[in-house]
Amino acid sequence: MTGPSRFGIVRLVSSRRDKQVRPAPTCTIALDAMGGDHGPEVVVAAALRFQADNPQVALILVGNEDRINEHLGSASRERIRIHPATQEVAMDESPSKALRGKKDSSMRVAIDLVKDGVADGCVSAGNTGALMATARFVLKMLPNVDRPAIITAVPSVHGHTHMLDLGANVDCTAEHLFQFAVMGSELVSAVDGIARPRVALLNIGQEEIKGNEQVKQAHELLSHSGLNYIGYVEGDGIFLGDLDLVVSDGFVGNVALKCSEGVAKFVRHSLTSQFKRTWFTRLAGLAAMPILKSFRRTMDPRRYNGASLLGLRGIVIKSHGGADVLAFENAIYIAEKEIHADIPRRISEQVGLHLGSEQYRETA
Amino acid sequence: MTGPSRFGIVRLVSSRRDKQVRPAPTCTIALDAMGGDHGPEVVVAAALRFQADNPQVALILVGNEDRINEHLGSASRERIRIHPATQEVAMDESPSKALRGKKDSSMRVAIDLVKDGVADGCVSAGNTGALMATARFVLKMLPNVDRPAIITAVPSVHGHTHMLDLGANVDCTAEHLFQFAVMGSELVSAVDGIARPRVALLNIGQEEIKGNEQVKQAHELLSHSGLNYIGYVEGDGIFLGDLDLVVSDGFVGNVALKCSEGVAKFVRHSLTSQFKRTWFTRLAGLAAMPILKSFRRTMDPRRYNGASLLGLRGIVIKSHGGADVLAFENAIYIAEKEIHADIPRRISEQVGLHLGSEQYRETA
Repeated sequence: MTGPSRFGIVRLVSSRRDKQVRPAPTCTIALDAMGGDHGPEVVVAAALRFQADNPQVALILVGNEDRINEHLGSASRERIRIHPATQEVAMDESPSKALRGKKDSSMRVAIDLVKDGVADGCVSAGNTGALMATARFVLKMLPNVDRPAIITAVPSVHGHTHMLDLGANVDCTAEHLFQFAVMGSELVSAVDGIARPRVALLNIGQEEIKGNEQVKQAHELLSHSGLNYIGYVEGDGIFLGDLDLVVSDGFVGNVALKCSEGVAKFVRHSLTSQFKRTWFTRLAGLAAMPILKSFRRTMDPRRYNGASLLGLRGIVIKSHGGADVLAFENAIYIAEKEIHADIPRRISEQVGLHLGSEQYRETA
Repeated sequence: MTGPSRFGIVRLVSSRRDKQVRPAPTCTIALDAMGGDHGPEVVVAAALRFQADNPQVALILVGNEDRINEHLGSASRERIRIHPATQEVAMDESPSKALRGKKDSSMRVAIDLVKDGVADGCVSAGNTGALMATARFVLKMLPNVDRPAIITAVPSVHGHTHMLDLGANVDCTAEHLFQFAVMGSELVSAVDGIARPRVALLNIGQEEIKGNEQVKQAHELLSHSGLNYIGYVEGDGIFLGDLDLVVSDGFVGNVALKCSEGVAKFVRHSLTSQFKRTWFTRLAGLAAMPILKSFRRTMDPRRYNGASLLGLRGIVIKSHGGADVLAFENAIYIAEKEIHADIPRRISEQVGLHLGSEQYRETA
């Protein structure tokens, strides 16, 4: 793997800064080395892999020095350094407890490094609730954004689709959904190089009872916005629809994402057991092996690992807790993309533009 | 196909009536012959297929006599008869318009036949909103049930899982979710022959912000109920979890169901395109054909076609609008199963039992 598959091989759209001829910009990414189910074992290995292909990016491994050193071994440390942190946030720790009681946790220190400008962004596989609460507390929200939202890409017949929110916000107003759409659209525009991403609202299909009140009101707001809003989409549209971004509240988005992971696992389980049934099917499986491998690659959730916390004054990427080396590496790639695209600044501008517009104020 | 795959080959649990030695009971099922995308072309063919294997069940085809006759042709009409209806409900017609203006629609007349005791249950592939509104208006709710819910089974690594609600109720209180659980549990018990089905509530996984208020309160109600409640489950649990019933509100349930359909289609699309890439992969595809066919059969949504409207004083099965002959036939099988299991009576008893319990009254 030589690049972040989540965003394919699409180049960033040109921003004002990109127009100057200059070498690829260097950036610094802080990694919460103690987060996730595997801690430094996975994070350090992913950092080394990433750096082998991206020597221009500096990495800071945050956490227990001894344990990180153990995994770094004799690797070159030219662009990798360790920043010590004495505490760890447990995967099942409550966000409020982590926030109050763990001021020197690897997660908190990694976010502090972003706030202090030492790092341009950070990646953590730690628990989502604590990461969200800490990031929000330390970095603060962008002006006019009420809540952060979690966004990721999922594979689709057209390549991939971005979805948000994925669990940060259980109950949302129409205005929240609208803000998510603005932020998500800007992210997709930046990382996928699409000038006007097609934005849809996740809904259910029955005419009269279509949607709850929030969704209907968000539909009104989006219909009168400057976004490329294409209307409602049902659950299957995420994977089959010709669109770029699907917006929902965090409860629905989280269920949709987890469902899709469940079906994908069920499919793998079902295919594997079919091929294992008899000697004949095992032979057929051997013949089909290269195709099945390639198919598995398309569906590989590791290639989509790395969800962004949008709406903050800084870049924070959440890796899956159970991520392996390849998956965590993908999350670092996403951080790098967002740093170079200057996502928080771009979102801030767009939110100002859309939420200041006359249509929005009239409709909202 | 010789039986209803949605419920596998599991025998009904014995009810008091089953203990008497008697021949298989005869029942009558009304079919809305004009509903769905294909109307009588599919419904009549499905009726003939079903009857070939189930000569003891009488069928009533409701709709335009000429069009039904055209498709019936010279088939034996011993246990199939036509009941005329002059109107049709369009697939995009509003429920209220269908209810007020289409009193002689094939959908309405099929439900009327159930109400009048002429048929023991009915099947329609017509639009869900209109079917729900008409069924509720004509048949009325069971005592103590506030709202009808839509339930279906989806394939899982353990066979299948039932899910409800799938779109009848967009906003639900904790009490509604509790009623859904009671009704769904009784249905699963009856059709799958499981004495105490394992019931779970659909939720999202982040500790502190876990669930919205309704879900948390429903969790309390279920924890103190006599149901075999196993707690929260995330979206992937529907397809991977060791459980029998997943309960959610209609918005979330509908998104989950449609998502799973979308991922399944995406997988088929992706597998097919992998096998079509080169001559070598086409050859490998030929070798793997029997396995892929068997795999496709496991995933075939037609084998799961037929959702039940629970909570009504009568049996109404909703077929997918785009159902083909095999899919519609499956929905007729489900109607037959529910008739023989006497579902409305069983649900009515259970609802009375659970909603009258001291724990429920104290908690609710």
